[in-house]
Amino acid sequence: MSRKAYFKPVKGAPAPLRAVCERPIRFEEVDPLGIVWHGRYPSYFEDGRVNLGNQYGIGYLDMKKYNVVAPIKQMHMDYIKPLAFGDTAHIEALLHWNEAARLNYEFIIRNNDGEITTTGYTVQLFVDGDQELLMCPPDFYMDVLESWKAGKL
Amino acid sequence: MSRKAYFKPVKGAPAPLRAVCERPIRFEEVDPLGIVWHGRYPSYFEDGRVNLGNQYGIGYLDMKKYNVVAPIKQMHMDYIKPLAFGDTAHIEALLHWNEAARLNYEFIIRNNDGEITTTGYTVQLFVDGDQELLMCPPDFYMDVLESWKAGKL
Amino acid sequence: MSRKAYFKPVKGAPAPLRAVCERPIRFEEVDPLGIVWHGRYPSYFEDGRVNLGNQYGIGYLDMKKYNVVAPIKQMHMDYIKPLAFGDTAHIEALLHWNEAARLNYEFIIRNNDGEITTTGYTVQLFVDGDQELLMCPPDFYMDVLESWKAGKL
Amino acid sequence: MSRKAYFKPVKGAPAPLRAVCERPIRFEEVDPLGIVWHGRYPSYFEDGRVNLGNQYGIGYLDMKKYNVVAPIKQMHMDYIKPLAFGDTAHIEALLHWNEAARLNYEFIIRNNDGEITTTGYTVQLFVDGDQELLMCPPDFYMDVLESWKAGKL
Repeated sequence: MSRKAYFKPVKGAPAPLRAVCERPIRFEEVDPLGIVWHGRYPSYFEDGRVNLGNQYGIGYLDMKKYNVVAPIKQMHMDYIKPLAFGDTAHIEALLHWNEAARLNYEFIIRNNDGEITTTGYTVQLFVDGDQELLMCPPDFYMDVLESWKAGKL
Repeated sequence: MSRKAYFKPVKGAPAPLRAVCERPIRFEEVDPLGIVWHGRYPSYFEDGRVNLGNQYGIGYLDMKKYNVVAPIKQMHMDYIKPLAFGDTAHIEALLHWNEAARLNYEFIIRNNDGEITTTGYTVQLFVDGDQELLMCPPDFYMDVLESWKAGKL
Repeated sequence: MSRKAYFKPVKGAPAPLRAVCERPIRFEEVDPLGIVWHGRYPSYFEDGRVNLGNQYGIGYLDMKKYNVVAPIKQMHMDYIKPLAFGDTAHIEALLHWNEAARLNYEFIIRNNDGEITTTGYTVQLFVDGDQELLMCPPDFYMDVLESWKAGKL
Repeated sequence: MSRKAYFKPVKGAPAPLRAVCERPIRFEEVDPLGIVWHGRYPSYFEDGRVNLGNQYGIGYLDMKKYNVVAPIKQMHMDYIKPLAFGDTAHIEALLHWNEAARLNYEFIIRNNDGEITTTGYTVQLFVDGDQELLMCPPDFYMDVLESWKAGKL
């Protein structure tokens, strides 16, 4: 497989953080053509992001504790194969290394046969309680970056 | 038509407030069987409630101004005929007279031919900013009740 | 607890079929007031129904195999306590005994503390491939009823 | 404004087709942070696409008549400013000229003040009734292209 990288590789960066979760396709997510409507995938990506975030202490509720939020600034999706009712989406999220006040997530969704059905990414920027963009990552995330770099995650 | 009344008639009550709005069925709302998935109708009811609320000064934003909210405590739906992509839902909301701290809404959805496709109701109870149930309607709603009774709405 | 029964008890009926599944509340399901928007619950009920259906061979795909569908004709919800982001919905579905061509499902949702947050029901009627109402249950479901009555489920 | 073009300009191409529609933000679309959840925007884009499609005879139902569909292969969103409850999304869709069997749509969403809140694009590929990719545009769309080029749309 030679998919184009969504994010420019950073020299000397540690490997991305990874986490996989599953989600059975719901009847209500399938359209009249019998496949998952394209607009449901942000929710699948979100499941992947939440799952990874919770594993590494950088989920919504963690951020709330530190009074920061990280709204989505960009989202991209490539639809390769459809998913149907009865399928399960295996959602892999990868958080790519980046030292700026942003979160670069890549997503790879596979079906039960391990075939890639959908890929994409989201970019989030950290803002403080007043909705002001942060110039550098918040402290709690600096700690995560440090452990990550040190290979302790 | 002799549908059973959802709300017990109140003696001497003024006629219900009424408002109608339209909503074309979206592709994404239709299921693999080609009809609107039953779980989309709360959104159609909400459109009807918001539309009536805005016309009579009892919408979400009006309530917010007075620091009350009116969460849904009960919802009921009767599915009579399906709606499909290409149809338009004609959503009639009726607010039934009630002097307690509650809102009794009835909904009647019709298709383009004027046939009733769906009926139902919601019951909301007023609560204050601390989520405490109000024993009597908030002042702004008392004013609405008064004008309503006086036939000025 | 003395909640009113949603379905009239049938004399001599076997106990309802039961199944429980879990669903973490998603960020996207929570409204500006910080609680799950009331219109998401049809999806929670559906999860419960699908889960029970799959366990007893009466799910969507089972029905499809036998060329019948069972559209929802009625849905009812009582909202008792809210659910919030971070909570998990524990969704109990109960299929009540009925010998007609219908499915009477009751739902009880509990939070992590075991408190009941939401209850309700749905009624489905069996129709054939031509959308005609069936006068008696389809054969595959008669088999289920027989095993159920015999205590073999 | 100097936004980067989403699609490479085609030399000698006629101006894009344009259509604008409006959509008031629904309470249910707003998240706990008080802004529209990022995953609702595919539905806003779809409204824009359906609106333009219906105006130019290239909507879902038109395609169905000709036994073709045009599934989404790629979707991209840039979130610039948030939308909130009470706002109305003014959704502009632009169909960019392309002679291949694909539809390149660009979207620009503005708020009531005319400020751009969100931009993005979708790419669709035409497939026939057997889900086979078409090598050239279907006949009905060739007619549209011809009228478009001739300045008759």
